[in-house]
Amino acid sequence: MTFVDENLRRFTGELQAFVRIPSVSSDPTRARFVQQGAQWLETQLRQSGLTRVLMLPTKRHPIVCGQWLSAPGKPTVLIYGHYDVQPAEPLQDWKFPAFDAEIRDGFLHGRGASDDKGQMFAHVKAIESLLKTGGRLPVNVKCLFEGEEEIGSPHLPAFLTRNRRALHADTAVMSDTRMLGPDQPALTCSLRGQLAVEVEVHGPHHDLHSGNFGGAVHDPLQVLCEIVARLHDRDGRIAIPNFYDRVRKWNDAERDYLARTGPADEAILHEAGASEAWGERGYSIYERLTLRPSLAVTGISEGHGGAGPKGVIPCQALAKLSFRLVPDQEPAEIERLVRCFLARVAPPTVKVSLKTHIRSRPALIDRKHPAMRAAAKAYQQVFGKPPVWVRSGGSIPVVSEFQRLLGITTVLLGFASPGDSLHGPNEKFSLKSFQRGILTSIAFLEEFGRAPRTPPARSVEQAEQEALYDY
Amino acid sequence: MTFVDENLRRFTGELQAFVRIPSVSSDPTRARFVQQGAQWLETQLRQSGLTRVLMLPTKRHPIVCGQWLSAPGKPTVLIYGHYDVQPAEPLQDWKFPAFDAEIRDGFLHGRGASDDKGQMFAHVKAIESLLKTGGRLPVNVKCLFEGEEEIGSPHLPAFLTRNRRALHADTAVMSDTRMLGPDQPALTCSLRGQLAVEVEVHGPHHDLHSGNFGGAVHDPLQVLCEIVARLHDRDGRIAIPNFYDRVRKWNDAERDYLARTGPADEAILHEAGASEAWGERGYSIYERLTLRPSLAVTGISEGHGGAGPKGVIPCQALAKLSFRLVPDQEPAEIERLVRCFLARVAPPTVKVSLKTHIRSRPALIDRKHPAMRAAAKAYQQVFGKPPVWVRSGGSIPVVSEFQRLLGITTVLLGFASPGDSLHGPNEKFSLKSFQRGILTSIAFLEEFGRAPRTPPARSVEQAEQEALYDY
Repeated sequence: MTFVDENLRRFTGELQAFVRIPSVSSDPTRARFVQQGAQWLETQLRQSGLTRVLMLPTKRHPIVCGQWLSAPGKPTVLIYGHYDVQPAEPLQDWKFPAFDAEIRDGFLHGRGASDDKGQMFAHVKAIESLLKTGGRLPVNVKCLFEGEEEIGSPHLPAFLTRNRRALHADTAVMSDTRMLGPDQPALTCSLRGQLAVEVEVHGPHHDLHSGNFGGAVHDPLQVLCEIVARLHDRDGRIAIPNFYDRVRKWNDAERDYLARTGPADEAILHEAGASEAWGERGYSIYERLTLRPSLAVTGISEGHGGAGPKGVIPCQALAKLSFRLVPDQEPAEIERLVRCFLARVAPPTVKVSLKTHIRSRPALIDRKHPAMRAAAKAYQQVFGKPPVWVRSGGSIPVVSEFQRLLGITTVLLGFASPGDSLHGPNEKFSLKSFQRGILTSIAFLEEFGRAPRTPPARSVEQAEQEALYDY
Repeated sequence: MTFVDENLRRFTGELQAFVRIPSVSSDPTRARFVQQGAQWLETQLRQSGLTRVLMLPTKRHPIVCGQWLSAPGKPTVLIYGHYDVQPAEPLQDWKFPAFDAEIRDGFLHGRGASDDKGQMFAHVKAIESLLKTGGRLPVNVKCLFEGEEEIGSPHLPAFLTRNRRALHADTAVMSDTRMLGPDQPALTCSLRGQLAVEVEVHGPHHDLHSGNFGGAVHDPLQVLCEIVARLHDRDGRIAIPNFYDRVRKWNDAERDYLARTGPADEAILHEAGASEAWGERGYSIYERLTLRPSLAVTGISEGHGGAGPKGVIPCQALAKLSFRLVPDQEPAEIERLVRCFLARVAPPTVKVSLKTHIRSRPALIDRKHPAMRAAAKAYQQVFGKPPVWVRSGGSIPVVSEFQRLLGITTVLLGFASPGDSLHGPNEKFSLKSFQRGILTSIAFLEEFGRAPRTPPARSVEQAEQEALYDY
């Protein structure tokens, strides 16, 4: 589309401005930047030509909405994305400053460049391109951009429940996943769920001198390590009783497809910067990451926090655990199993408690859904080859929430590539992928507008009347 | 001594000023306060009447010296103390601000009130009282106050070696230990040594998304926990092979004395704020803390540090371990055993390294040394009862360094009490103990001045010529 080509320089400059806003949702000291990100996005949506653009408050970070419902008889697409980002620390590991949005060698470098500012912005620019050239969209569109994805979308489910009718759509689409490579598009058809918890071990009432009390009082950090060490067996399996009970077995055809189309062990290790593989025996690395559940210890801290080396036995210690779940595991049930396990292994010398931060179900996406077919055609048009079906090891809670609360399938139309370093230092997004992302979004909306369906007999006014948000 | 009573108010005010200087030696951002503490102390020493008062630089925090060598034929006492303090974090746990030096209910509250500012300052005020009332001291005195005790005295051994001659004395005395209670003096006759190390587990080159890589790459934090969990066996003993080989066996008479004079299990647990005991079977808690070695995990951190919850598998993880050693364990040998252990248990999926921060030998002090007899008499005079011989679970590296490098015994003339919360929040020092400390220091100097000895035939000029510092 020539409009995209002619305006790509401007689009890129706008994305740079977006990335320069350090909208780190988990950091309370940066809440005003998250707000700033929302405002910036709101302005963009207005300029793109969307109607009823709103910044809706939640208890923490706002949701930005917009819509275009003037295609009566056509299907409706809910476009989702998030404008918040992960923390950028450790800052010293970045080659270019995390929030400078430096462009070098065809990449935009910065936190959020690909996760998810660059990818979601491709849809915004697709809408703008269509509206500014033809004055209309091939489908009805509702946009829903949140600022809390990186902290587990705590306020989204309630928003979805309250606005079930306003958010009614035939499919959702989001771009927050990776392709197999910059030239090989991929459609994610499964996501792992997540149970993120904190295990806290409470010992003495206050920190103790490690000389005066070492050897006589149970050190909470030691206890915590001993508990964490019991979470895996020697074969790399999670040692919590009944943990694997509901893990779905896949047939040979599915495993063959994964082996044929998925990344080889070496490729995954290379990307990880790891020399050796590790994990559950009997599975390829790709299978361990997608068909099998996992557990990562993502943080340990002790005492009440505070700086400086102290020669003390801390009064308490805390471990952050991230379980990644697969069909048909239920986060709530796994949480119960974890609680039982802790009750069994906790020594009587301390108190052990559990706090749950994220509970998200695994998701499977129907490969035969018309929106998935439209997505495949869109990729084919822009990349010149069909997408591969992939499974992701990550979790996108919103996908299962859209399914559960809105009853709709989500197309994961990813434009990021391996090596874009999502969540790590040196995150980046290829400008070519940005351009192709805009074109693919346009093609997807056009293809889905042509998809066979039985349209409800509703006028634009009716559709707009229904799409009023309650927040 | 009436001078002490008449001036106690002023002395207390001076101690408050001293405690208000946040001379946290481990915190680089507070280096100027450590310097300020040294300068303040230098002024105090000058005003007390000591001669050749000097602030001697080291590579980090200065040493403050002073002397009075005008008692020819009398023995020489080396008074040691430290003007640096532990960090005060977590600040929210303090009832009174850590550096306000608030006086309430007969206690001076603040970081360093007892460890070691209040206790060492008792000696300074004892010297001042003697010099201002009688114009002379009953013995020769050399003062050596350092600012790096809480970080393991890294530059003291070299200073002692260089100034072996200048620091020549018949005994050292320091007040950095606790009595059994505010009215029951105690002479510490054994200290545990320490080996403080950091175990670092290095995994992938950079932090990894815990969804995209969880289950396929060995998590350094998990590995670290599994290593730490193997450091103790189920009986609370340290599971490093040969760790106990050189631990001295004590006879029944010694154990009986400890049982008779030492704190009961309940008292130690009460002070720790712990409901349950833990540790090596077959020993009382007091024995576990003094006759037996121990290991505390004092801290764990991951990644490159940095704030905020991040859903990542960290690229590295680090545990701080504090081994407390007993006669006849050698820190360097234990370090070798730890290295062997790590080499054996480290999985091939990660790299494990060890960094050593503190290596200090355990120390035993001869109870029959004339200085110890003088100390016992001094306590008897001031407290009206003889001291109990106690063993300490803590480590004071300088005691074994004085023995090794200067060839002198150290009298641990402690004035702190259980409940003074050394190293913890709400550290405090009883003003009554401060007063008695000054009086006991005076009595000790007087008693030791009467101790039988064969004085070398040296003039004041000769003694002063010898006592020139090289720094």
